[in-house]
Amino acid sequence: MAPTSKQLQQSTHDIQAARQKASFPVDQLTNYLYGGPENLKKVDKYRTIIANEPAFTKKKAAFQSRQEQLHSSIHAARRFIEIAEEQNFSTQEFLELFALSGISTPGYILNNIIDDNVAFWPVIEFQGTDEQAKKWLDAAKRHAIVGCYAQTELSHGSNVVGLQTTATFDEATDEFVINSPDITAAKWWIGGLGVAATHAVLQAQLISKGKNYGPHIFIVPIRSPLDYKPIKGVTVGDIGPKAYGGFATVDNGYALFDNVRIPRDYMLMRFAKVSKTGEYQPPVHSKLSYGSMVKLRVSILSDAGWRLAKSSTIAIRYCTSRRQFNPDQNGLESQVISYSSVRHRLYPLVATAYALILSGINLNKTFNVMTEQLSREDATLLPEMHVNSCAFKVWGARRSSEGIEECRKAMGGHGYSIFSGVSEHFATFVPANTYEGDNFMLCQQVGRAMLKQLDNLLKGKSYNLKTATYLDVLISNPTITVDANSIYNPELQLALFGKRAAHLVANLGRQVKAGRPWGDVNMECWEICLAHAEFLLLKQFHDTVRDLQKSQPLLAPVVQKLTNVFALSILTGTGLATFLTSQSINVADVDTIQEAYRNSLNEIVDDAIGLTDAFGFTDDELNTALGKKDGNPYGELWEAAQSNPLNSDEGREELGELMKTILHRGDNLAYIKAAKL
Amino acid sequence: MAPTSKQLQQSTHDIQAARQKASFPVDQLTNYLYGGPENLKKVDKYRTIIANEPAFTKKKAAFQSRQEQLHSSIHAARRFIEIAEEQNFSTQEFLELFALSGISTPGYILNNIIDDNVAFWPVIEFQGTDEQAKKWLDAAKRHAIVGCYAQTELSHGSNVVGLQTTATFDEATDEFVINSPDITAAKWWIGGLGVAATHAVLQAQLISKGKNYGPHIFIVPIRSPLDYKPIKGVTVGDIGPKAYGGFATVDNGYALFDNVRIPRDYMLMRFAKVSKTGEYQPPVHSKLSYGSMVKLRVSILSDAGWRLAKSSTIAIRYCTSRRQFNPDQNGLESQVISYSSVRHRLYPLVATAYALILSGINLNKTFNVMTEQLSREDATLLPEMHVNSCAFKVWGARRSSEGIEECRKAMGGHGYSIFSGVSEHFATFVPANTYEGDNFMLCQQVGRAMLKQLDNLLKGKSYNLKTATYLDVLISNPTITVDANSIYNPELQLALFGKRAAHLVANLGRQVKAGRPWGDVNMECWEICLAHAEFLLLKQFHDTVRDLQKSQPLLAPVVQKLTNVFALSILTGTGLATFLTSQSINVADVDTIQEAYRNSLNEIVDDAIGLTDAFGFTDDELNTALGKKDGNPYGELWEAAQSNPLNSDEGREELGELMKTILHRGDNLAYIKAAKL
Repeated sequence: MAPTSKQLQQSTHDIQAARQKASFPVDQLTNYLYGGPENLKKVDKYRTIIANEPAFTKKKAAFQSRQEQLHSSIHAARRFIEIAEEQNFSTQEFLELFALSGISTPGYILNNIIDDNVAFWPVIEFQGTDEQAKKWLDAAKRHAIVGCYAQTELSHGSNVVGLQTTATFDEATDEFVINSPDITAAKWWIGGLGVAATHAVLQAQLISKGKNYGPHIFIVPIRSPLDYKPIKGVTVGDIGPKAYGGFATVDNGYALFDNVRIPRDYMLMRFAKVSKTGEYQPPVHSKLSYGSMVKLRVSILSDAGWRLAKSSTIAIRYCTSRRQFNPDQNGLESQVISYSSVRHRLYPLVATAYALILSGINLNKTFNVMTEQLSREDATLLPEMHVNSCAFKVWGARRSSEGIEECRKAMGGHGYSIFSGVSEHFATFVPANTYEGDNFMLCQQVGRAMLKQLDNLLKGKSYNLKTATYLDVLISNPTITVDANSIYNPELQLALFGKRAAHLVANLGRQVKAGRPWGDVNMECWEICLAHAEFLLLKQFHDTVRDLQKSQPLLAPVVQKLTNVFALSILTGTGLATFLTSQSINVADVDTIQEAYRNSLNEIVDDAIGLTDAFGFTDDELNTALGKKDGNPYGELWEAAQSNPLNSDEGREELGELMKTILHRGDNLAYIKAAKL
Repeated sequence: MAPTSKQLQQSTHDIQAARQKASFPVDQLTNYLYGGPENLKKVDKYRTIIANEPAFTKKKAAFQSRQEQLHSSIHAARRFIEIAEEQNFSTQEFLELFALSGISTPGYILNNIIDDNVAFWPVIEFQGTDEQAKKWLDAAKRHAIVGCYAQTELSHGSNVVGLQTTATFDEATDEFVINSPDITAAKWWIGGLGVAATHAVLQAQLISKGKNYGPHIFIVPIRSPLDYKPIKGVTVGDIGPKAYGGFATVDNGYALFDNVRIPRDYMLMRFAKVSKTGEYQPPVHSKLSYGSMVKLRVSILSDAGWRLAKSSTIAIRYCTSRRQFNPDQNGLESQVISYSSVRHRLYPLVATAYALILSGINLNKTFNVMTEQLSREDATLLPEMHVNSCAFKVWGARRSSEGIEECRKAMGGHGYSIFSGVSEHFATFVPANTYEGDNFMLCQQVGRAMLKQLDNLLKGKSYNLKTATYLDVLISNPTITVDANSIYNPELQLALFGKRAAHLVANLGRQVKAGRPWGDVNMECWEICLAHAEFLLLKQFHDTVRDLQKSQPLLAPVVQKLTNVFALSILTGTGLATFLTSQSINVADVDTIQEAYRNSLNEIVDDAIGLTDAFGFTDDELNTALGKKDGNPYGELWEAAQSNPLNSDEGREELGELMKTILHRGDNLAYIKAAKL
């Protein structure tokens, strides 16, 4: 048995041969995705730190119980803190290092956004007074406390107004009394609350002088930072494991409050206030805090892109190095990536990853402009950012999680091994469909906003969302002629995507006008939301190509190819039905478009490995046996299996002894000997 | 805090109120699904046994490492054996009990089909001589050995002909020498091989006198049943955890063979033979062994149905008992099941579960007839069973696994808790997409078979597949008029589904004729396979309604309603694009069909809980906190969280101590005290 057999070498050769076919400068595209060489250099520095720190390894988790994983991840958290100190990192650098590691730790160790909730730090910074911010953020910054953001309750998630936890002001003691009326009011799913949090930023119904002023925000001690025992009156714990082993090292927790008293100045009082005598003063600007919700949706869009990028990188590499069926005269079978079903499934996912990443970059830029404006109490950008970030979040969460799982399936049997490295992304990312606003809730906001734009159009008013200009076609009704050439034309593609979205909005308008209640048109909103997001994603793709044609002409052609794969895969795939029903395309044109799609896939064949290389992932961060840069999936799977503690002497011994209690039952031992089994 | 708060009681009340609305005798439908009262009584007996046996609990697994889970499941395996002895169960009863438990154990403890491979027992029974069968099955029956079926290798799964393990006959010693040329030839994924197996039924290239006769089957010792040590020359172990924590207690394993010698009569010689002098005698009937592949696909179809049934039961119950938004004058919010998006997602999945279960029952019956015929060397039914079981397997694996995950998402945030009980079904069932023939491989067989039928049609020959009669419309080209009434007509629905499938086949024929190579039309085969399966599933539904109208008229109306939901959800959903492109329906008819679909969903509202109750699951086997028969999801989630070892005194203490090493770093302890945090 030679470990360097011909077949093992072949897989590396196949990857390398495919790599050389790239039609564009791969490094240049990597630089572009990371925002230039300076940024990439910084990222590479982080990668080196992560790869060299034993506490950050992901190799052991597969064999550990959740308790053991939590244990390891608290160690990792401490190492992050120590390294940041050693390296003199700014908070920003600390967060970048942590985010890049892909490691989750119990609690908001970093006191920032690392979970499914608006987090401790930014909430205090934004909604606390200057003194409050100083006190709590100082403590958080030196990791003397661990904070969490406690909003969701056992029986109320989406409907924040329905929260049941109360904060009743007691003038006699100048305190708030925090109380949970029953277990349905238990705070639940709170990241950091299960094990780590010493303090919570808590949403509770503010009651003063017998009047309920709705949900407000309070800082509530949970565990003593001295001895880690729960504060008197607080019942706190971890809610248990999550589906698919996802978020195993995040300690989503619960808490019940039995008349827990906090000083009045533990209410965050930058906007709303309660005086010593219990007088309530409402906030002046009620919508300013919406910015943080938008921020989370922006981050989900990027996460959707980068996780799909990792998954498709692994799948493309594995399918390039695996051969099966159709041996040639030398006995060399066909590469799995050459199967048309595999190309139809994987190439559009690479294009989708690019679409999400590019839109994420752009949305992030706009978000920063908006934040700057909001700090000057200018909310001009908020409505459009709200609608578009909803659509992006819904589409990104849905299509990326489906795409990650499709990458896994496209790898066949071995894709079901934990060592593929893909399933972890699905397990951890799929809840993005239901958190930060359930997808089917958010899409109603897109539907409603677009209906408003339609109304503006019909009344001759101007849109208050720029994107809504695609509705113009409802008036101008231009003829769009699809043929084998025009289908690659950016303007035509955008016209088709815009027309579809516009007609879906118009149809919703008709349905509502005909009397269907709002609660009955969820699915119509769903289709609008997807079509809206696809219009935006395609537009971003074309805008990027146009920019690249000027700034980096060597990259423009390959991104143009991706754009075509993206547009045509939707036209012939998940979007086909609505393109037909909206009469954006005709049944007679479908054959032509399908052939164009197949051509667009053929165009990408030589660039597939280059395009996944360009994402810039190291083997270390992909954490895969199947999709390493140099292939060798069989050798890597073999090695991974050897690290299984079940295969150690102790592991074998223990389970072997147990098995013997079955095999040697009754008179079997004599029977086994006699029968020479 | 009263644990019996109004809100907790409300959830039970909501479920009970919904239960009472059922328009049909629920018990009668349960009886029908289980094959009559006698069978159901037996199943209930098994359920009682399982519920009362502590070793069969599924409550602890969520908190255990995989090693600990394996440990527990070997104990469970022993209890199955002991109980079967105590109760004097036949092998059949033993298997029924085991299958119903939903428990997986390391190894083929039961020496039968419990994993993703054709298994030890049936292979020996079918392909072994009478003496071989007696020797090995006696030993297996008394659990003196544990067998496994070793086919797949690290570098060869789908392509069996490419297997590299060799069995070379040595005349000098009358032995075969089993050898793995390198690690790419390692047997891999073999259920039972990782920990438990003492013997393997092994596929290897038979070589005699220097000639390779292709893959044949051998019994190869793996571990000594005396001391559980690997046999000399065998390198064996567990391949490691699977994606999503699926199949955690199945010990999929690997093995390498370094010139392991076995007696000549360890080759299964009922059909093919090798003489003492190394003469090879080929089998007479080469296709007889195909039956067992069909059997596995039949079992995947049933599994698809019952797992989706469990998942949709949980989701429907939870969404009935959860309320969110829109409080009425009493403060009572709306039931989540009343949201149109939830109905659009869940009701079709209940219908799909019924479609799969009903087709599974019928396919199983046909399979038994075929098996009986095959034993008389009559293979009449094999071609049709092969094609239809492929289509069912592909469709069932895909749609059920997607549907299970949609059930999970429809439960919002809490659906991501392991305690929903749904994610386990996805984790364990999703590999059915890639095992027993990758879906995208199998669908090519359906495409090819239907192309052959098309050829028969065009040449005026008769079909050799009965189902192919739907191709007749390509000649007769009947006009199908869809309107608000006719769309509920069974003949019209079947005509639409048949026309679509026929036109997809005709299109494939055109494409191939126009020169597109077979390897380029995978996706066309995929669409045909799905359309073929949907025609079969819908036909079964209508056949069942017709039978019930005669035999159990009280059940016919509700199954008719399900049939409409099933048909119309496909017409307006995943199938819409191909119904349009095949011109089975026109764009102008889509509004009408969508309205009909909404009506069909409204028709099912009152029966939703009854239809899921009718699946007959006990709370124990659903293993859910969210979907118990009497609701109470919040109380159950609370209880489940309390069982988390992290919340025990030791659990808190251990991680609290660790957290302190972070919080108390440097001079933080003094700081914490001074700042009174």
